[in-house]
Amino acid sequence: MAAGNGSGSKRLATASARYPALRTATDPQEVIRGSDVDAVVIATPVSAHFDLAFAALQAGKHVLIEKPLTATSDQARRLIEESARRKLTTMVDHTFVYTGAVRKIRELVDKGDLGRIYYYDSARVNLGLFQRDVNVIWDLAPHDFSIMSYIIHEEPVALSACGTCHVNDMENIAYINVFFQSNLLAHFNVNWISPVKIRTTFIGGAKKMLVWDDVAADEKIKVYDKGFEVQSTEGLHDLLVSYRTGDMWAPKVEQIEALRVETQYFIDCIKNDKTPFNDGVAGLRVVKMLEACKESIMSQGKMIAL
Amino acid sequence: MAAGNGSGSKRLATASARYPALRTATDPQEVIRGSDVDAVVIATPVSAHFDLAFAALQAGKHVLIEKPLTATSDQARRLIEESARRKLTTMVDHTFVYTGAVRKIRELVDKGDLGRIYYYDSARVNLGLFQRDVNVIWDLAPHDFSIMSYIIHEEPVALSACGTCHVNDMENIAYINVFFQSNLLAHFNVNWISPVKIRTTFIGGAKKMLVWDDVAADEKIKVYDKGFEVQSTEGLHDLLVSYRTGDMWAPKVEQIEALRVETQYFIDCIKNDKTPFNDGVAGLRVVKMLEACKESIMSQGKMIAL
Amino acid sequence: MAAGNGSGSKRLATASARYPALRTATDPQEVIRGSDVDAVVIATPVSAHFDLAFAALQAGKHVLIEKPLTATSDQARRLIEESARRKLTTMVDHTFVYTGAVRKIRELVDKGDLGRIYYYDSARVNLGLFQRDVNVIWDLAPHDFSIMSYIIHEEPVALSACGTCHVNDMENIAYINVFFQSNLLAHFNVNWISPVKIRTTFIGGAKKMLVWDDVAADEKIKVYDKGFEVQSTEGLHDLLVSYRTGDMWAPKVEQIEALRVETQYFIDCIKNDKTPFNDGVAGLRVVKMLEACKESIMSQGKMIAL
Amino acid sequence: MAAGNGSGSKRLATASARYPALRTATDPQEVIRGSDVDAVVIATPVSAHFDLAFAALQAGKHVLIEKPLTATSDQARRLIEESARRKLTTMVDHTFVYTGAVRKIRELVDKGDLGRIYYYDSARVNLGLFQRDVNVIWDLAPHDFSIMSYIIHEEPVALSACGTCHVNDMENIAYINVFFQSNLLAHFNVNWISPVKIRTTFIGGAKKMLVWDDVAADEKIKVYDKGFEVQSTEGLHDLLVSYRTGDMWAPKVEQIEALRVETQYFIDCIKNDKTPFNDGVAGLRVVKMLEACKESIMSQGKMIAL
Repeated sequence: MAAGNGSGSKRLATASARYPALRTATDPQEVIRGSDVDAVVIATPVSAHFDLAFAALQAGKHVLIEKPLTATSDQARRLIEESARRKLTTMVDHTFVYTGAVRKIRELVDKGDLGRIYYYDSARVNLGLFQRDVNVIWDLAPHDFSIMSYIIHEEPVALSACGTCHVNDMENIAYINVFFQSNLLAHFNVNWISPVKIRTTFIGGAKKMLVWDDVAADEKIKVYDKGFEVQSTEGLHDLLVSYRTGDMWAPKVEQIEALRVETQYFIDCIKNDKTPFNDGVAGLRVVKMLEACKESIMSQGKMIAL
Repeated sequence: MAAGNGSGSKRLATASARYPALRTATDPQEVIRGSDVDAVVIATPVSAHFDLAFAALQAGKHVLIEKPLTATSDQARRLIEESARRKLTTMVDHTFVYTGAVRKIRELVDKGDLGRIYYYDSARVNLGLFQRDVNVIWDLAPHDFSIMSYIIHEEPVALSACGTCHVNDMENIAYINVFFQSNLLAHFNVNWISPVKIRTTFIGGAKKMLVWDDVAADEKIKVYDKGFEVQSTEGLHDLLVSYRTGDMWAPKVEQIEALRVETQYFIDCIKNDKTPFNDGVAGLRVVKMLEACKESIMSQGKMIAL
Repeated sequence: MAAGNGSGSKRLATASARYPALRTATDPQEVIRGSDVDAVVIATPVSAHFDLAFAALQAGKHVLIEKPLTATSDQARRLIEESARRKLTTMVDHTFVYTGAVRKIRELVDKGDLGRIYYYDSARVNLGLFQRDVNVIWDLAPHDFSIMSYIIHEEPVALSACGTCHVNDMENIAYINVFFQSNLLAHFNVNWISPVKIRTTFIGGAKKMLVWDDVAADEKIKVYDKGFEVQSTEGLHDLLVSYRTGDMWAPKVEQIEALRVETQYFIDCIKNDKTPFNDGVAGLRVVKMLEACKESIMSQGKMIAL
Repeated sequence: MAAGNGSGSKRLATASARYPALRTATDPQEVIRGSDVDAVVIATPVSAHFDLAFAALQAGKHVLIEKPLTATSDQARRLIEESARRKLTTMVDHTFVYTGAVRKIRELVDKGDLGRIYYYDSARVNLGLFQRDVNVIWDLAPHDFSIMSYIIHEEPVALSACGTCHVNDMENIAYINVFFQSNLLAHFNVNWISPVKIRTTFIGGAKKMLVWDDVAADEKIKVYDKGFEVQSTEGLHDLLVSYRTGDMWAPKVEQIEALRVETQYFIDCIKNDKTPFNDGVAGLRVVKMLEACKESIMSQGKMIAL
């Protein structure tokens, strides 16, 4: 059953034509209160997430909500509480963590192939699409924050952000630094006005370094047997550092349809009463980072504790 | 005539063998005070720049100094003053501004092909070489700061920087944001521990966008006829923004040996009593940015006025 | 209305489920003789093309036939005759000539931008899919032969081919040379066992040279302002040839769905009684080249007149 | 000691200036008969190879001759005989077989990593330089023929070639097919008028497939764990072939200066009375292939036995 608002009536008609068996509605409450509805998927502008999800939870429905989970961390906390109280499944749609590439990267990091992680550097840039209700950080960074959280097990302690606006007062370009207790540094570049589409993540480790290029048709992940070793810090002019350059290896990445895996997992969690790993708490973690970005930008790039 | 210190005696021997006509010395004063020496080129660790250059100026010699000009802006100011007082030519070796690529980019920007500049985003990363006396910002960013100054005529008003260290207390990875009075935002990524060598600069303008890939064998500069136009900021959900995607054009870049052009220009400025555009003032501009980076990093990424 | 043979009954079921309005049949005659059927699309193994198409024409239906048109040139000629006698439209599905890329290339060649054409060099290689009833030439080369015919207006006069087999007695790798009255030389590389997917065509002209990379996400067509001019052929050792290297330009390629345009054109030709440019004659031209390839391979690569 | 002819006097002057210790001469006989000369390196147009090399051998000198060894196979045979009779070392400069890339490829093939070789496909194309005395095959194919001979241990049994001329009566584009007793097929594309420089070799084996891109700055060799297995040749429509797609691996390639290794090896062979693997016989093998190309082109691409 699919619900859309007034301006979406044309889309409902298209959906009905293509999937004649689909029931449609223009009032979301028809879905939320549907007696034969067990779970609700919320794919609306962020500002509507909380009200719809909260209503659905109150109506006893499980919810799967598009990223970012909510517009504020308070909202996220209320969803988590409501969900817990009613023993319902709340899941946030961090699709990328279901892709073959991200799963392979986590596997490599967990096995220790990269060694201790030195940096995590991500770029997600392209031309458009400007969103009306959120800036480029709220639009794109949830992908990267959720991917990093999935791969890197250390919790970030602070972040800083800056950006600029060329259309209205919403940033369309932004850079974010995320700090950790260790000397791991993460950096995110999100941009709606880039002439080329870039989706790369560099993960530099003490043993190996990895580049994930999600735009590449093949060999999306490249693992470089490269690194350096400090021989001595006592040299007169140059540090005595030796550099290691070995093979490159591009592991096969499973071609899976992430959204299918994710929705299957959602059903599985509901049926078997399992807490999904990308639950409300995972969603809150990302929302808190987004809020910190906003706060940092408003205070001239000040470092904000998480 | 070439001078090198004790530990460089082997290098002097190599130089002598290869260029038998070359006079060598182990004491720089022999060069600086050489009665048949008109100009001195200083290619030493940064910490030695000022003393050598100042001595050379006092000895009445013109000086060409490797980037960055000096270790502090005070030193740079003293060189500028001494140079002016003695009517000598002081030039800083910002080699890149003599390359065919940078000159072509400036030409395109000056002609207005890109329109108003929205952002300037540069990455200069590779594996090594760790320097002993300076961090990655002092090593690599002078290239990018001097290139940007040459291309973008608006003066930056502030910057912020952050970085992390994995060997000693010198940053080997750093990110720098540079702010302007307009909504132009510049960003610099410098990194000594990247598995791949990247030398790219994105310049996004209102009319066109440009990508300069200095590692590319051919088509180093690509100009994209891409952009967006705001139709209305009153849309319900999406901004009414239209995106334009047209041709891409890779102008021919002259293959010139930048260092040869630069040294020729140095001689030309001396002979014809011209003030080089990359004079002490240009060098000072970069040193001030480097100092601001240091200050920002020491104060948790605070924005520092320039 | 869709017909499939016995072994395709599962596919019919899938099609029915997805498009409930679709009528299906297991006997092609139901389609061919359908009183409410005006035109028949034939998408079967090549060996079945002729019988089905001929039957359809005899039943007064227009036909659109997948490439290659038929298994022999005799069959193609009979379809052309039958089609002409009955004033029906016969069209061969050379899909690529409806793509934005091929249309742009033809436009550039027709405008004379490339000058006189010196060579045409195409590679269409990847891993799989082995066909049972035809070799790699019959499977892949029809694309390239039809594209070349569309772009190059000079008629080829002869060809030679060679290949090798690793599975059965059908070539899975082949190289084809196509000769023209002028000194234009065309070459085709088709391969089912390549580790990487390549779809490139080089067209070298007296004025400019063009590379079409159909696998590229962007800038599929690159036009190089490169060439050479003979200064003198009297030099002692080297020819006095000067080389020209100018800008590269990647024209925007329209993103159109070729199959949609083609089927629309098929309907348009039928309704308005127009002869499609990719009619039976165009299909025959390709079949004759395929036959010549077979003959050349059987006679050790002998050059076969067309 | 270096000799150059009259028109090369300017080059001799340059050489002398750069290497003051170098003795120069304008008459090659001065070198060939020099009493303090043990070995002669011949780097002249092909047409002069034989006379100079034969004279040097008769004067008791070892010779290292640029590729191709001679202008005819008769000449090559005479050099081999003279060299054997006088127990002198004759070596042909097939430089590529000393590169880290070619040595790594041979190592992989010899270890059986690729399995049985199915095809060898090479492209060596760029813009220029037209040679006066030889066509593009004689200029470029010796590289590829010698590389293939070094890597593939099966002897070719026949070849065919075709080409076209756009300047004089020398081919500037050519394609060569090389046949083996097994179903291995080799193919070579050499072209002086390509807008882009390509240096790739594909080697497809039963177990793995390899792509060598000599223009790539890094990862010159990529080994693909890709292939196919025939399940059954009895399928109705499609062959029952399964395709395997696994990891890709780019082994580190040693950065060695091939020419230095080769000349060292030349000296080593002379001193230790060893027969170099790239001796006159290896040179003759390539010359015979070049002659066969010429014969094939003159007889309309006929297959020529080797």
